Amino acid sequence: MSTQRLHVGIIGAGRIGKVHAESLAFRVPESRIVAIADVNREAAQAVAARCGIATVAESSEEILANPGIEAVLICSSTNTHADLIVQAAQAGKHIFCEKPIAHNLGQIDRALAAVEAAGVKLQIGFNRRFDANFARVRQAVVSGEIGSPRMLHIISRDPGPPPLAYIRVSGGMFMDMTIHDFDMARFLIGDEVEEIYTAGGVMVDPEIGLAGDLDTALIVLRFRNGVIGTIDNSRQAAYGYDQRVEILGSEGKIATENCYPNEAVISTGKMVRKDLPLNFFMDRYTESFASELRSFVAAVREDQPTAVTGIDGRIPVVMGLAARKSYDEQRPVRLEEVNG
Amino acid sequence: MSTQRLHVGIIGAGRIGKVHAESLAFRVPESRIVAIADVNREAAQAVAARCGIATVAESSEEILANPGIEAVLICSSTNTHADLIVQAAQAGKHIFCEKPIAHNLGQIDRALAAVEAAGVKLQIGFNRRFDANFARVRQAVVSGEIGSPRMLHIISRDPGPPPLAYIRVSGGMFMDMTIHDFDMARFLIGDEVEEIYTAGGVMVDPEIGLAGDLDTALIVLRFRNGVIGTIDNSRQAAYGYDQRVEILGSEGKIATENCYPNEAVISTGKMVRKDLPLNFFMDRYTESFASELRSFVAAVREDQPTAVTGIDGRIPVVMGLAARKSYDEQRPVRLEEVNG
Amino acid sequence: MSTQRLHVGIIGAGRIGKVHAESLAFRVPESRIVAIADVNREAAQAVAARCGIATVAESSEEILANPGIEAVLICSSTNTHADLIVQAAQAGKHIFCEKPIAHNLGQIDRALAAVEAAGVKLQIGFNRRFDANFARVRQAVVSGEIGSPRMLHIISRDPGPPPLAYIRVSGGMFMDMTIHDFDMARFLIGDEVEEIYTAGGVMVDPEIGLAGDLDTALIVLRFRNGVIGTIDNSRQAAYGYDQRVEILGSEGKIATENCYPNEAVISTGKMVRKDLPLNFFMDRYTESFASELRSFVAAVREDQPTAVTGIDGRIPVVMGLAARKSYDEQRPVRLEEVNG
Amino acid sequence: MSTQRLHVGIIGAGRIGKVHAESLAFRVPESRIVAIADVNREAAQAVAARCGIATVAESSEEILANPGIEAVLICSSTNTHADLIVQAAQAGKHIFCEKPIAHNLGQIDRALAAVEAAGVKLQIGFNRRFDANFARVRQAVVSGEIGSPRMLHIISRDPGPPPLAYIRVSGGMFMDMTIHDFDMARFLIGDEVEEIYTAGGVMVDPEIGLAGDLDTALIVLRFRNGVIGTIDNSRQAAYGYDQRVEILGSEGKIATENCYPNEAVISTGKMVRKDLPLNFFMDRYTESFASELRSFVAAVREDQPTAVTGIDGRIPVVMGLAARKSYDEQRPVRLEEVNG
Repeated sequence: MSTQRLHVGIIGAGRIGKVHAESLAFRVPESRIVAIADVNREAAQAVAARCGIATVAESSEEILANPGIEAVLICSSTNTHADLIVQAAQAGKHIFCEKPIAHNLGQIDRALAAVEAAGVKLQIGFNRRFDANFARVRQAVVSGEIGSPRMLHIISRDPGPPPLAYIRVSGGMFMDMTIHDFDMARFLIGDEVEEIYTAGGVMVDPEIGLAGDLDTALIVLRFRNGVIGTIDNSRQAAYGYDQRVEILGSEGKIATENCYPNEAVISTGKMVRKDLPLNFFMDRYTESFASELRSFVAAVREDQPTAVTGIDGRIPVVMGLAARKSYDEQRPVRLEEVNG
Repeated sequence: MSTQRLHVGIIGAGRIGKVHAESLAFRVPESRIVAIADVNREAAQAVAARCGIATVAESSEEILANPGIEAVLICSSTNTHADLIVQAAQAGKHIFCEKPIAHNLGQIDRALAAVEAAGVKLQIGFNRRFDANFARVRQAVVSGEIGSPRMLHIISRDPGPPPLAYIRVSGGMFMDMTIHDFDMARFLIGDEVEEIYTAGGVMVDPEIGLAGDLDTALIVLRFRNGVIGTIDNSRQAAYGYDQRVEILGSEGKIATENCYPNEAVISTGKMVRKDLPLNFFMDRYTESFASELRSFVAAVREDQPTAVTGIDGRIPVVMGLAARKSYDEQRPVRLEEVNG
Repeated sequence: MSTQRLHVGIIGAGRIGKVHAESLAFRVPESRIVAIADVNREAAQAVAARCGIATVAESSEEILANPGIEAVLICSSTNTHADLIVQAAQAGKHIFCEKPIAHNLGQIDRALAAVEAAGVKLQIGFNRRFDANFARVRQAVVSGEIGSPRMLHIISRDPGPPPLAYIRVSGGMFMDMTIHDFDMARFLIGDEVEEIYTAGGVMVDPEIGLAGDLDTALIVLRFRNGVIGTIDNSRQAAYGYDQRVEILGSEGKIATENCYPNEAVISTGKMVRKDLPLNFFMDRYTESFASELRSFVAAVREDQPTAVTGIDGRIPVVMGLAARKSYDEQRPVRLEEVNG
Repeated sequence: MSTQRLHVGIIGAGRIGKVHAESLAFRVPESRIVAIADVNREAAQAVAARCGIATVAESSEEILANPGIEAVLICSSTNTHADLIVQAAQAGKHIFCEKPIAHNLGQIDRALAAVEAAGVKLQIGFNRRFDANFARVRQAVVSGEIGSPRMLHIISRDPGPPPLAYIRVSGGMFMDMTIHDFDMARFLIGDEVEEIYTAGGVMVDPEIGLAGDLDTALIVLRFRNGVIGTIDNSRQAAYGYDQRVEILGSEGKIATENCYPNEAVISTGKMVRKDLPLNFFMDRYTESFASELRSFVAAVREDQPTAVTGIDGRIPVVMGLAARKSYDEQRPVRLEEVNG
């Protein structure tokens, strides 16, 4: 292992770029952030000041041209990911890229080919794999604690929908939100889905429907190994962020509950109650964001495969395309139908 | 209301007949069991002795011919239900009949027509509606505590499969086991399902598959009002009887847990644990069996509609036919396709 | 074992007499209630009608003189218990007596001597030993699941105080309410207490203090075997009936939770909540009332020792006297100081 | 508020010194660690390397003499605390000092007088006040959610006893372990204790008794406002670190549960189980260590009173003396008896 800190550049200083900068600066001592860039220079400056980053670069190009940078975090908007991966790979940088790589398989394949050709490492930001709850579920499957998996249920509901302006460019709920759950399904079961059936609707806000998207969905997954899974998605849960999974196996089941800001239970003359669960991903998945970067930094420094590879970034996009096709055509769709 | 006890005859002294006899004898003082009959006379005699029933009748005919009997409980095997309903209706008896009425819609329609013609009351034995947990969920929907329902999940798993000999005559998992969940779905949401999609498999025992049945299923329900529901069925849960529901509404969610024999939690050097849930329906639904009979007896004595009508007995059979057709044809099936 | 039902007479048709009559009539088929008596004849008649009891006796004397009665349930007011035990023993009846036997050790000793002399069986109505939760805790101690007990905590809080008129004749909170917890402490640990320290106060209603009683207490128990225990008593818990225990042992702990009318959890935009626990002993301990009578009937029919003996009825009274003396003198009191 | 980071020196690089250094370095950006010292210079060097601290000082004197240091963290052994507080106060440094200040009230009073004379700020390291669970309980008391407090229970059990060598110099369990609970009792109720009764024993290891200490205790607290509290302490809980509180108030109760590494529940053919709670204070109270330092840094920068004052450091020592005296003399002891 290298005894030196990994020198990192960050492209994108928005919400997730800031989260990653803070994780690297304060919680991953094996790394050092050399520079950060954002199309909004003030945003980059604010993060740099907060995290003690010496250089605010003028552009992503400046980051990629910096010979002192070994790895980049691509935290810019989705439509720039594929091109940036290609450029970063050609510049010989190791790459951590936020999900999704792109909404288009052609772009993804081009990006993965560039990574392959350059021989750099690529990790996709499916942070939930690093969450203590989901990691524990995966461990139960791997260890055989619950026998062979038979049924999987993923509940994944947001506290409220994003702005319509965002929804219009998001690629749709399947690409934007469910993509995490598609990854989770593959991760937990350790096998591939071959068919998807979607029952969905517009129940939260008719404007979302007018924008061509849906806001509520029940997605049935059929895995190659026979496991049947469901994903329950809603853009709105009145009580906050709802993130649970359950697996039934031949020898038992494992189920996770939501995470709460405290464990206090209050009993009054009217009810027994507790405070609402942690409201959104920033609070719920705080630790996992730091863990995924620790994992990436370690993979680069130790020259090991990354924990979430390029193909792990591609397959959920295929699943999203299949889910949408099933929703449109109201029939089960095999992944091979959309995996052009 | 009548001030006199309702005089009841019981046809069938098997497992469920015995449960109902005990409920009436010891927990429904507004009723009196006049006679009981079973093709196995010893079984009838044992129940009569246990419950203080004066007469062991020679046959169902003797029960139906007894002018001192106002109402009958039909607890015999499923294939006799429809004919017995017809005969009991023609004899002017009020009828409580175990589910399902029949596996065949023609037989059901004939039975319901006889009930209609005779003007007697009919209640179907969907006891789970009277379970405190599910009744509480229904109350939350009716009262608006969780707003308008959007998604429904029913988990219904047995501790282990019945004998193959039983499975072969059971009408299949959808008729035998899921039928309760079809009723629960209608009851909880208070609306009708119009389309069903089934993803199922044989995961517990290949012999079940060879017998033409399945043992594991995920059934997607689309209600007329837009609600999307799922039923998760397994013939085998290693940890026992698993009976839960969850509804997501516009203003919140309600979810029920399993019931346990005690509330003790033991923490040792290895784990934090509790005993297994109540193992099967006799323990889990004890109270609901008494409650459904109290409800039936009250409906007859007070001349009110029964809580679970003939049509409530018919529709789940239609749903079972649709679920099977979907399984066979691997596509969503509308109920009108099978509702001949 | 006798193959015949045990013939029982009931003395007292108040709240607890009615509970026991219903348990015997509907849930203990090995018994038959021959007669019931109460100073309020209408109360006895109502229970007789409800439970199908043939005879409403004029007096307890008539019950005791009835040669067809093998056992009596003494459910009359506490001040009559000791005399009735003496009379019943002299009449050769087996005895189930509600707690406490008396508030005065002399009366108790006279009653127990009469039982001893007559060679009849006596069981005291400490029903909570038969509760599934507490029985499970006792089992954990006996089986060694948690190793050797070190600390015991009993929480026992009523939803609200009884009327002042009742409190004035109740013998005080320790005799009326804590007496169940004193029994529970001995039962769970399986050893005797030798010293008690009470920290108490009047926090619920100053009138209770003016009546010479207290309404809130923390009682520290020191067992002979070194275990330290506490009893937390309150005459008022805003959220209802609170009945929990916890034991820390050398190898772990066991703790019980309250019992609820349903297992539904509701999450809304404000909180995560469930309904209040079962409100009072009639609901919380329903099953245990039937179980204690089954146990008594079985002990008589099979000529076995009863599960809760006369000495089990005496010792909690000694503990109550010590707790009170400690409260009055504000120092730890050894049981031998009050065990005259 | 100062716009500049608070310049801090750390005295002591042992277990807790390292925790605080990491908190300041990575989680309190408003501070900067200028120097660290430890009698074990290698320990100081290791922490300095880990946390990017520029200077490893030769001694605490060097830290205190450094004009660039505004505040010091005293993390050395307990016997040095009082003297270091005096010296730091005389050097004009603001002080964060680990608990306890000293085992001797004379030393404490001398230290507090020096702080008073110098006009510097002092915060004592009772980190648990900053734990999300306990803070929530305090909030419930302050807000009136549960009405007026009546009873308080604190459960505080360690996974296992420290080495005997440590126990011999620890000041005893009350000074070393219970001191946190004494502070918690005052914090949660917001009032002072006036009398303490201790029932304790040696149940974990007889060697602890031979060393003059105890390992298991039940401590009863009587507050001036009438509240009755208990502290349950054990040096050994087989299942790990047990840290819970419960308050009964006139309008309800609030109770906290332990914290777990994950929320997964596993059901198998034998039991329903989850993993053990977070094992010890480093994991259980991670966040509170950072929060208390954020609070200290903010108090200094904003010139506000600290959240845990010198008198908050003194009173728990008085309570510890009273608890010990009660244990020795087996009677309730008023705090004024030991508050020399």
